[in-house]
Amino acid sequence: MYKLLACCSMASGISLQPKMVQASLGVQKQGNGHCTNVPRNVNLEKLQNNYLFPEISKRELQHLDKYPNAKVISLGIGDTTEPIPEKISLSMANYARALSTAEGYRGYGAEQGNQALRKAIAETFYKNVLIRDKEVFVSDGSQCDISRLQLCLGSKVTIAVQDPSFPAYIDSSVIIGQAGDFQDKTGKYQNIVYMQCGPENNFFPDLTTTPRTDVIFFCSPNNPTGHAATRKQLQQLVEFARDNGSIIIFDSAYAAYITDNSPKSIFEIPGAKEVAIEISSFSKFAGFTGVRLGWTVVPEELLFSSGFPVINDFNRIVCTCFNGASNISQAGGLACLSSEGFQAICSVIDYYKENTKILVNTFASLGLKAYGGVNAPYVWVHFPGLKSWNVFAEILEKTHIITVPGSGFGPGGAEYIRISAFGQRERIIEASWRLEKLISNEKALFNSVENKE
Amino acid sequence: MYKLLACCSMASGISLQPKMVQASLGVQKQGNGHCTNVPRNVNLEKLQNNYLFPEISKRELQHLDKYPNAKVISLGIGDTTEPIPEKISLSMANYARALSTAEGYRGYGAEQGNQALRKAIAETFYKNVLIRDKEVFVSDGSQCDISRLQLCLGSKVTIAVQDPSFPAYIDSSVIIGQAGDFQDKTGKYQNIVYMQCGPENNFFPDLTTTPRTDVIFFCSPNNPTGHAATRKQLQQLVEFARDNGSIIIFDSAYAAYITDNSPKSIFEIPGAKEVAIEISSFSKFAGFTGVRLGWTVVPEELLFSSGFPVINDFNRIVCTCFNGASNISQAGGLACLSSEGFQAICSVIDYYKENTKILVNTFASLGLKAYGGVNAPYVWVHFPGLKSWNVFAEILEKTHIITVPGSGFGPGGAEYIRISAFGQRERIIEASWRLEKLISNEKALFNSVENKE
Repeated sequence: MYKLLACCSMASGISLQPKMVQASLGVQKQGNGHCTNVPRNVNLEKLQNNYLFPEISKRELQHLDKYPNAKVISLGIGDTTEPIPEKISLSMANYARALSTAEGYRGYGAEQGNQALRKAIAETFYKNVLIRDKEVFVSDGSQCDISRLQLCLGSKVTIAVQDPSFPAYIDSSVIIGQAGDFQDKTGKYQNIVYMQCGPENNFFPDLTTTPRTDVIFFCSPNNPTGHAATRKQLQQLVEFARDNGSIIIFDSAYAAYITDNSPKSIFEIPGAKEVAIEISSFSKFAGFTGVRLGWTVVPEELLFSSGFPVINDFNRIVCTCFNGASNISQAGGLACLSSEGFQAICSVIDYYKENTKILVNTFASLGLKAYGGVNAPYVWVHFPGLKSWNVFAEILEKTHIITVPGSGFGPGGAEYIRISAFGQRERIIEASWRLEKLISNEKALFNSVENKE
Repeated sequence: MYKLLACCSMASGISLQPKMVQASLGVQKQGNGHCTNVPRNVNLEKLQNNYLFPEISKRELQHLDKYPNAKVISLGIGDTTEPIPEKISLSMANYARALSTAEGYRGYGAEQGNQALRKAIAETFYKNVLIRDKEVFVSDGSQCDISRLQLCLGSKVTIAVQDPSFPAYIDSSVIIGQAGDFQDKTGKYQNIVYMQCGPENNFFPDLTTTPRTDVIFFCSPNNPTGHAATRKQLQQLVEFARDNGSIIIFDSAYAAYITDNSPKSIFEIPGAKEVAIEISSFSKFAGFTGVRLGWTVVPEELLFSSGFPVINDFNRIVCTCFNGASNISQAGGLACLSSEGFQAICSVIDYYKENTKILVNTFASLGLKAYGGVNAPYVWVHFPGLKSWNVFAEILEKTHIITVPGSGFGPGGAEYIRISAFGQRERIIEASWRLEKLISNEKALFNSVENKE
């Protein structure tokens, strides 16, 4: 009755896949099962191993298996730890509670977000740069919007990223099909421009030698290096994008941690509205990592080469591939932006900033070069000549502290470890003490140059 | 200093874009602004007009502008209206409230969802078909997971959809690049197989003439027709997919509305685990349209042609392009699946089912053919010879009732209107009365065959 097709002809191909991917779920090809005749997405085949942060979580679980009584301190995944201010949690609780009343029940909201929240975001963060409410799209977090932006831009555009950078930029680029093959030798994907950002260039790429790309992902304050680009650096970036006809996707998820005069938004730079999109988040700003809330600003002035407004296409993606952030989370977002809520959040941020100072001082006292920390909740520690995964493993084994190996952020992070300052104060102090002990006791190890990546 | 590139050379090209897309945001090319040199995504260029549901909302607003005092009744977008049972809203409120305490605060959860919720979903919906907890991925709604599945499968696969069907299947397919151009003449995209499903074939495609595709989107109970596929029909579908090496993406978002013995999950059909993914949702099941919660089941037995497990790639997408559903929504989901919560939800569903009966009887009494309703909260009404957008407009103008024109679901819906049974009882009764009055008064109009689409 139906057409018969030969399938499973390549069933043994599974053994060619990276082992870590399979290990992550423990799925192996079933004995004598049926195979579909659907080819695996070539873009997924190109992806290296697991996504960084679930991989770190896995390592943590493995460590706990090995040392069930260890007092593990996580300075790895940048996860907020302090309670959400009461005013904000209460507004979410009240909203949720009211959903069981005829007056308070709400169904679908606008895909782009609650109008009052869009307005509050525009007024709180963009008042002086004249971003309009309708240019603000509320999301369930900036990581999700990175993929939606990639869906919007498609597989034909070329991208540049800071090296090191938050891995979702590159991984989403590979998934959508913008990247070539991964090169083991360089640790880079073909067709992606890696803009080296290290202490040697004040964490800002040399734009005179940077090839033109359609899209430039730029995160400031940067994850993982903690560097906030200066006004002058961002002016150069906007000028570069204007000259090249590029679009900057500016990630300002850590803007609330800026303590100096570095711009908190790309739109503080004149001319940016015609070349930039900004993604941001309530995650690190308001401790909403689990509550899920963020936003993206697409200015009406941003146009494709044909003159077609980018905002129209992004709006279409949001309407088709997303259904709005949870209305309860949005109620919380609105409370965050009230004057009382905002003030309470700032106290929590100050707490994390104090943590950061403790960590920065620890590494400085050990004679290690530690960057970031001033404008970001991350400290970026240099271990010259060492492989970052080895340093990660050594620190975990000896101190039960989870960090993030810099090479997870690109080849530019090969000799670095990212330390997150999110955590309860006593744990940060305890971690500093353990790190101090380890590193001063094993000076020989942490100065080795034998295992250079 | 930087390379200079000519841009804006095609700035006038904007006038070639569909007018509705621009009108939706009111964005026009800025006078003498800068254009980037980034080409618009060709896949987005192919998309027709606006996404259906925001377009319906726009029409509603326009109608309210015209008749500010009209008592509009919305039987359009399938949006739940009844309060969430207290047990469930309270569990969310308590979770949210606890986020301001040291003991209750939670940051990032697992991207795949809270372990207890995954387990509860597996036990509640899939106990007899042995779906494992780890095969359940909690999402922020099935519409979002449709796009994530498309990201997983990539642009090279071919797809088939029921005609008519929920528009996100086709639109997401166009966005990812699986579709060819839209054909005005047929109302169809090239490279997509439209499986005609109407009363003439008991809403099930003739599989002997259906071409093979990699992926088959299949929604049961169907949105918009309200037809729940019978066990025999689904057995045929699974057999067809097995013979062809295809993957079925089975949308069971309305399974809770089934009143007869139709299968509520594709996994009730033997052999389905090796050929099917199931997407589902708390939206219509628990009134979570605004709360945002759903799930997707990817069985470990489902393999690409190489033998590589689909679940591994979907897991990678979820980890990279998503960060988990809101933890507050997930707490609500867990409460829904407690015995008390589940019972309370069933009462709400029964309420909507009663609404559906009222609507079905209304159309029957008018001598119109109305389908669905028995196993779904939608009634699918046939207006032979009429254009659905005209019927939509006529009903709106004369009765202030919002419906959905069938052609929004594909050419197979050209002569149909979808009526949603979500609504407060008195509004449903009032709507029935208004529709009865209009249709019996204007028999000539509703029997016209002049405007056939």
